[in-house]
Amino acid sequence: MPANQQILLDNRPQGEATVGNFKLVTTDTPALTDGQVLVRHHYLSLDPYMRGRMNDSKSYAASQPLGEVMIGGTVGEIVESKHPKFKAGDQVVGMGGWQAYSVVNADQPGALRRVDTTHVPLSYYLGAVGMPGVTAWYGLVKIIAPKAGETVVVSAATGAVGSAFAALARARGCRVVGIAGGPDKCAYAVNELGFDACIDYKLHKDMYSLAKALKEACPNGIDGYFENVGGMVLDAVLLRMNAFGRIAVCGMIAGYDGAPLPLANPALILVNRLKIEGFIVSEHMEVWPEALTELGTLVATGKLRPRETVAQGLASAPEAFMGLLKGKNFGKQLVRLV
Amino acid sequence: MPANQQILLDNRPQGEATVGNFKLVTTDTPALTDGQVLVRHHYLSLDPYMRGRMNDSKSYAASQPLGEVMIGGTVGEIVESKHPKFKAGDQVVGMGGWQAYSVVNADQPGALRRVDTTHVPLSYYLGAVGMPGVTAWYGLVKIIAPKAGETVVVSAATGAVGSAFAALARARGCRVVGIAGGPDKCAYAVNELGFDACIDYKLHKDMYSLAKALKEACPNGIDGYFENVGGMVLDAVLLRMNAFGRIAVCGMIAGYDGAPLPLANPALILVNRLKIEGFIVSEHMEVWPEALTELGTLVATGKLRPRETVAQGLASAPEAFMGLLKGKNFGKQLVRLV
Repeated sequence: MPANQQILLDNRPQGEATVGNFKLVTTDTPALTDGQVLVRHHYLSLDPYMRGRMNDSKSYAASQPLGEVMIGGTVGEIVESKHPKFKAGDQVVGMGGWQAYSVVNADQPGALRRVDTTHVPLSYYLGAVGMPGVTAWYGLVKIIAPKAGETVVVSAATGAVGSAFAALARARGCRVVGIAGGPDKCAYAVNELGFDACIDYKLHKDMYSLAKALKEACPNGIDGYFENVGGMVLDAVLLRMNAFGRIAVCGMIAGYDGAPLPLANPALILVNRLKIEGFIVSEHMEVWPEALTELGTLVATGKLRPRETVAQGLASAPEAFMGLLKGKNFGKQLVRLV
Repeated sequence: MPANQQILLDNRPQGEATVGNFKLVTTDTPALTDGQVLVRHHYLSLDPYMRGRMNDSKSYAASQPLGEVMIGGTVGEIVESKHPKFKAGDQVVGMGGWQAYSVVNADQPGALRRVDTTHVPLSYYLGAVGMPGVTAWYGLVKIIAPKAGETVVVSAATGAVGSAFAALARARGCRVVGIAGGPDKCAYAVNELGFDACIDYKLHKDMYSLAKALKEACPNGIDGYFENVGGMVLDAVLLRMNAFGRIAVCGMIAGYDGAPLPLANPALILVNRLKIEGFIVSEHMEVWPEALTELGTLVATGKLRPRETVAQGLASAPEAFMGLLKGKNFGKQLVRLV
């Protein structure tokens, strides 16, 4: 069996996460038992939710245990199989974690899914045609549920979730407005991702200034909002929501490092009769087939062409993850492991 | 025609509302034209929503115009009719406003509803079997939608909405916990209204202390919350909500007088995958018949026995309204006009 490289969570962040929270180790890969397969990972996915797992606090998901391999989505190729339904050479997506190889009990429901790379590049199964894409789909279709002609807004607009959100919302006849950090990301959102407009939040020092920019970009107000960041951006959007607006809360990355970030004016929930709903896509596995079919079709037909930022080698994962948390990536953040 | 007494909104509050914001005038009652009826009001309803209408700010409802009769629900008796479907002596509920008499175009949909006082006292049509009761019904049934055995919580527990909420939730097999101000109200909630427990928020100086009391009163956590007040109470409840909890936002009286009251930790919406929904019962007229039928039955069978605080005479309405905003009333606040 090949030697394996792994990244463990070594200690928990005090405030901001740092590369010092992680430790790279080399281990032996155990021999397979019946029903197991050995997967060589081609790509590791880096996602904001991982930051939450690094904390010890009570949350929806179990906290990442210290001294164990960091959780993470992976795509790769089976190199050895002791399971009748998988064979060497199969391309699969799974939750292999921050390591070069994983041994998987392939009978466990949802542990491994075989994928077809004829029309969709392998790495996209970690982004547009994977968990982030389905996340965008669930928030848009099941919570925001927009009518054609409505205006929907997404923060972290050029990330893996935001770019899928834009394609899905355009397909439903919505006006789609993004919020992102910096002129390059905003230009990319409009020129390549199909956003009708994109606002650079870094140009705005408070929620009122950002709300004014939203008013210009959303002349008919905001009917649906997909929340990835929280903080000032959410406060500003709330000032521009229409009556009966819907807000899907997927992430609040702005508050991951420290004290809770308050919401400035919750009375707007009543004034505008808003519906706000938090969700985690892994709790809604029933929608994945329908969502993945639509997302795969959007990619295959060129209507969703997400960009990727790819770090090379497992050792680069911690630094790349710090960059993701600060918005330094452009589109989906991956680590290439082969 | 009889002379009419009316209370007008004379000027808008700067911060807290005061009796000086109102003006009592005596006017002539105009002669009826075809299709109109003259109603003598027996009771005027005082409700927290009126405070919002006194402000000039943009809200869901038109602001109360200066110099006009204050908006308000009324029950009374028709004393003269030029409408074929109503006759003198009919008991009716409507939105007659803060005045002794009103002239009503009875053809206008929803303007007047004839009521039966065989099993339900006339004044209850402004409370348990009226708008406040339907408000409790909508939030509980349509937003919280509890299962038997779940725990639901309501703030302003002994008010008109809270007391109806308790009876409706008990009928659905829920554990019902109230939050109210002072030991007398809390004892009344448990001894007369059927709450399983009631917490005196005045004993708690911050959200953590109140959250601790909620933990004791709700050992299985909180599945549904009906929000009437906002502020610290909402912050404390959020700390105790179970995964997939539902919050119906009906009022945020804590913030009516001034600057918006922030919500301390909105990330809990995501952590616990909560659904939070604001609503106004007048926008859901389709549920009124079903809700009023259930509420009337609860009253007629003695399962809902709300208390009333009755001020005597129209001139006492402003002072009684100030008391309502400060929680001085006990149960439904009315003004008796006959």
